[in-house]
Amino acid sequence: MLLLIPGPVQTRPETRAAMAQDIAPWDNDFRPVYAGIRDRVRALAGGREGEHATLPLQGGGHFVMEAALRTFIPEGGKVLVPQNGAYADRAVRLASAAHRQVVALPIPDTRSASAEEVGAALAADPAISHVAMIHNETGSGIVNDVEGIGAAVRAAGRRLILDSVSAFGALPFSLADHPEVDAMLFTSGKCLEGMPGMGFAVARVDRLEAAAGQAGSWCLDLSDIHAHALRAGWGSIRFTPAVQVIAAFAVALDLYAQEGGQPARLARYRENARVLYEGVKSLGLTPYLDWADQGPVIVTVHQPADPDFALQPFVDALKRRGVLISNFWNTHAPSFRVGCIGAVTPDDMRMAVAAIGGALDELGIRDRAASAEVREIEGDPGTQSATKRA
Amino acid sequence: MLLLIPGPVQTRPETRAAMAQDIAPWDNDFRPVYAGIRDRVRALAGGREGEHATLPLQGGGHFVMEAALRTFIPEGGKVLVPQNGAYADRAVRLASAAHRQVVALPIPDTRSASAEEVGAALAADPAISHVAMIHNETGSGIVNDVEGIGAAVRAAGRRLILDSVSAFGALPFSLADHPEVDAMLFTSGKCLEGMPGMGFAVARVDRLEAAAGQAGSWCLDLSDIHAHALRAGWGSIRFTPAVQVIAAFAVALDLYAQEGGQPARLARYRENARVLYEGVKSLGLTPYLDWADQGPVIVTVHQPADPDFALQPFVDALKRRGVLISNFWNTHAPSFRVGCIGAVTPDDMRMAVAAIGGALDELGIRDRAASAEVREIEGDPGTQSATKRA
Repeated sequence: MLLLIPGPVQTRPETRAAMAQDIAPWDNDFRPVYAGIRDRVRALAGGREGEHATLPLQGGGHFVMEAALRTFIPEGGKVLVPQNGAYADRAVRLASAAHRQVVALPIPDTRSASAEEVGAALAADPAISHVAMIHNETGSGIVNDVEGIGAAVRAAGRRLILDSVSAFGALPFSLADHPEVDAMLFTSGKCLEGMPGMGFAVARVDRLEAAAGQAGSWCLDLSDIHAHALRAGWGSIRFTPAVQVIAAFAVALDLYAQEGGQPARLARYRENARVLYEGVKSLGLTPYLDWADQGPVIVTVHQPADPDFALQPFVDALKRRGVLISNFWNTHAPSFRVGCIGAVTPDDMRMAVAAIGGALDELGIRDRAASAEVREIEGDPGTQSATKRA
Repeated sequence: MLLLIPGPVQTRPETRAAMAQDIAPWDNDFRPVYAGIRDRVRALAGGREGEHATLPLQGGGHFVMEAALRTFIPEGGKVLVPQNGAYADRAVRLASAAHRQVVALPIPDTRSASAEEVGAALAADPAISHVAMIHNETGSGIVNDVEGIGAAVRAAGRRLILDSVSAFGALPFSLADHPEVDAMLFTSGKCLEGMPGMGFAVARVDRLEAAAGQAGSWCLDLSDIHAHALRAGWGSIRFTPAVQVIAAFAVALDLYAQEGGQPARLARYRENARVLYEGVKSLGLTPYLDWADQGPVIVTVHQPADPDFALQPFVDALKRRGVLISNFWNTHAPSFRVGCIGAVTPDDMRMAVAAIGGALDELGIRDRAASAEVREIEGDPGTQSATKRA
């Protein structure tokens, strides 16, 4: 089965194999593995030793995003969220639930937020201390303009929390060029091709120290994870984690380096996305994004207008052909999404395109152009009701 | 290597093997696995369908404990914590960080809290709405009197949050007999012998519904996990988890049932503990607890008075003999602890006793009686400074 959901991703057998062992998290033989991961992902983020630190956190992207919002923004503080996708919607909810004030900046889910829009919103409200932004929207596949928006945040003297969950390791970004970033967030189970279950923040040490005590939570306090590392060592894990996920992540990082790191991974994913994008077009389907806006992480496709089309039977028909995609969607208009990340190749994508064609034929879907219908977003937690896309 | 740290525990090969696969958490083939786990652990807890619900949560015991405290106790609300061990200390910190008021009830770490002590503390302060209690203290090995204290809480018209992390599945307890319990908490990686990485609460549905919106956190809101299940189905996971841990947990539950469930597991652990307890005594060592107070989960042993004894070299010498124990301790007086839980047998315990004897001989530790010295608690996060034990 080819896993294209995307995330958890298809992994390599060596990575999965590392899961099948009993491990004592605090064993002196395991501590260097954990400490090594912290060093390696800090370097991947462009972080500098002493200036940045890696804070691992049990759970996935939601957990580390809530932790970053709580840690760096004081209770009652104000955060701007450029809102052009499902994960931005979730950042809004995570911040609001934690009693942080949210200023939402609504943007169509078919394009990036612009530096000008963010700059204007910051200028309009001096009480906003932070911007929380999604690097790559896993719903639509939009890649936000992190360079431009980062510069706008910097120019305005504000701080940035960057959710890079589905981008980190593939899309280029360096904390060395972005002193405005308090924390860059990612997880084990996306473009680094590890197993799911651990979140990570690479954060500025000065900001972590300044933020001590304001999280209003012990579990979700990145500052305390940093303090624990200073006290107990960088190989010491705070609270029992899914420790096998950490062991597998070390293997995944080895494989990442062997492949050639970020440039090689991005090149493979881009080619995966190109094959898929052109392939679905050749089948008569309509991609959700223009090619110019299409990122390399997922290709989202409008559901066909044909009234015989329904997502679950389509997913089931694809699965019978060895391809597993998500059975829900996260865009304003009805869509299905196909991941381009994980241990998958352009040949796998050609196989997926053939499977999509076969599934549509089997289901008798003839009118494959985009449906004009707008329905509720299906199945996934935390998303707002669907609205007609702008 | 025999893992006796205890927790993560030694697992069976079939359980570990289930970790080495890629899984789509929302796949229709996986949903019944997840829903089945929820049903099975609710039944193990003595919960009734419709009256109780299982709320899985990414992370381990600390995460689900913070979630329970946040969910059921409103901000500013007051919770009593009988404090006779490291995990009670942590409950105090988790509640305080979440802006809940804590009334600590200090108890020596060598015996259970009593129903009378808890009843008196509740009578003295009508503002206390909840008691948060540790079923089995993984530091010392003390089993608290959950039956008696539960009755005292019930009689006082208050509510109980029961951290049963290192007891659940082995020590008997039934929610059917304890309507005062809002939530009973446990994890995948202890007496049920799964892999670490998932926490669980079995909670009252009426209390979950009444608690909606008071957690002050989206991630750590058990009420929202329940609402998500009602909306999306019991097979739907809220946020990406360490999904392989869930798959392995299903296998661990199968093996648990095959062994004969709670009575069989308790019998094996009790025999493990007896062999270990008598074994270390026969080596001239001093167990931390009297036999009458000794639970079946861990046996904690005073560090020898011999000035040549230090914990890490002892742990290393044991490891060379194929036995891995914790390299920190969580009691008031210096100790080492040996787990009796996991896929280990009395024969394994006899091997561990021999290894302990061999390690002490190798290190030349002759004076093996309890050290009178009291030192700082070592290595582990969140514990308070050691105090002389009462």
